[in-house]
Amino acid sequence: MSAGVDPPVCVLGLGLIGGSVLRAAVAAGRTAFGYNRSDGAVRAARGDGFDASTDLAAVLDRAAAASALIVIAVPMPAVDAVLAAIAEHAPDCPLTDVVSVKGAITAAVQAHDLSRRFVGGHPMAGTAESGWEASFAELFADAAWVVETHPGVDPEVWTQVARLAVLCGAVVVPAQAREHDLAVARVSHLPHVLAEALASAGANGGDLALGLAAGSFRDGTRVAGSAPELVRAMCEANSTALVHALDETLDALTQARSALADRSSVADLVTAGHQARQRYERFERWDISGITPGSPDWVNRMLAAGRSGGVLRKI
Amino acid sequence: MSAGVDPPVCVLGLGLIGGSVLRAAVAAGRTAFGYNRSDGAVRAARGDGFDASTDLAAVLDRAAAASALIVIAVPMPAVDAVLAAIAEHAPDCPLTDVVSVKGAITAAVQAHDLSRRFVGGHPMAGTAESGWEASFAELFADAAWVVETHPGVDPEVWTQVARLAVLCGAVVVPAQAREHDLAVARVSHLPHVLAEALASAGANGGDLALGLAAGSFRDGTRVAGSAPELVRAMCEANSTALVHALDETLDALTQARSALADRSSVADLVTAGHQARQRYERFERWDISGITPGSPDWVNRMLAAGRSGGVLRKI
Repeated sequence: MSAGVDPPVCVLGLGLIGGSVLRAAVAAGRTAFGYNRSDGAVRAARGDGFDASTDLAAVLDRAAAASALIVIAVPMPAVDAVLAAIAEHAPDCPLTDVVSVKGAITAAVQAHDLSRRFVGGHPMAGTAESGWEASFAELFADAAWVVETHPGVDPEVWTQVARLAVLCGAVVVPAQAREHDLAVARVSHLPHVLAEALASAGANGGDLALGLAAGSFRDGTRVAGSAPELVRAMCEANSTALVHALDETLDALTQARSALADRSSVADLVTAGHQARQRYERFERWDISGITPGSPDWVNRMLAAGRSGGVLRKI
Repeated sequence: MSAGVDPPVCVLGLGLIGGSVLRAAVAAGRTAFGYNRSDGAVRAARGDGFDASTDLAAVLDRAAAASALIVIAVPMPAVDAVLAAIAEHAPDCPLTDVVSVKGAITAAVQAHDLSRRFVGGHPMAGTAESGWEASFAELFADAAWVVETHPGVDPEVWTQVARLAVLCGAVVVPAQAREHDLAVARVSHLPHVLAEALASAGANGGDLALGLAAGSFRDGTRVAGSAPELVRAMCEANSTALVHALDETLDALTQARSALADRSSVADLVTAGHQARQRYERFERWDISGITPGSPDWVNRMLAAGRSGGVLRKI
């Protein structure tokens, strides 16, 4: 059987992101059910009126029977075991994920021979909290939700994943795995790395420096308040792209350092940075329209649109 | 004549900081008058009811007659000309400044043989605006106001400067010129440099990256929105200290880069940064008391207090 473009949704992992997907899908009227390894989260989800189970095999058998869209929402270390179970119980189901960096996920999916029906995803949403108790249906409101787009991608699964993102209130950003990973290295992982380094530089100045710190230090170090294990996990999972972004930044900082040591001007760094911030402040998404998944050249057209700030608000 | 610990205040330069000093001093009941080179600011100050003039020689003659505390509040490039006029018209007046970095000011004051009655200052306050129109009496409320403290400093002038800071609503942080410059390099100039580099790294990822940017990028690049000429001026004026802070940061980032490239852990950077941010969040000023300027060992005791987060709220 086929459930068409809006199959039931099967969410594996009911933490902040997965739990919010389950809540948002149900709130929007879709049939959705979930799995979580821990009994506590499943009991809490059931207590909140949701269809959840700790029996992965049973959940996947049900997904296979319904041709459900499976959403992998477990932490990276648990992905391999979940993929093995999918390969055994539901190898033909459409498959996506919300586990952040795409390179590692894509490799794991390939290793389990599940690439054919897989379209990776990454909602750019989160809070400092975690677990089912922190999840809420509105988490994805107006957030960017990257949907992996590449030559050979299955347009039917792509459409299902994009429609799930829109259903959850997000806007779809089409992107290749590698360019997604590079982009989030620049705008998410690099900011964390710089914030950690800045916080240390400030504290190394002792209480005199901390007592003189004002807005620039407070804002520049805010995300160093995030849980260290989460920051480590996301930076280390995206190491190749982050090294690329860091090298570019180290070059710019080293040039500025030389200019300062030579009593020369840091105009290059400051002018470029100011223009970049102005570009960011002026940046506005625009709506992609008229590209039908599966139509001639649709992948390249979607990717070009995503690269220039286009998003899908409906599909 | 001597006006004791609370002499009239003579403010040279009526921009954001100098204008706010004039307003705050008058609001607190002190006799205060000002000079500005441009006729427009003087007219505006007079229109607001303040005692201001464009005649530097006349203003300084008046300051000399009243033994006024002279506050240098002109931009760094104008400091030399103002010091020359002070040396000619009012060489015996107590003297302070609010021009930011202390190293360059101290050297200029020495070159004009005015060190004997000089105690440098630096209120850690400001807005993105500039000029008399932007000034307001409450600018310094609860801000840290560094008062330069070193062996041989004149305790009478030191007290006058500290009392002016308190009068303006600030808290006094005693510090040496060099340690002040190193501290603000860490918590003010370095954050600006990193924000500029981060903004460029994000924008170099194109509209795809800017479209995926969320809170960590927004906060980490906020001060890259500051006027480039102001950022350049403050970084370049404090180049020696900033190079020191930048080298420390480049070392930490280079180590993290190597760890990522080796698929190793960035725990060192992330753990240290997180602890540093927590230390900053927990940091609280404490009140210095019982140290009388001029008493035995008062300079070292003040400096030790300033280094460990102590401030003077009254004197």
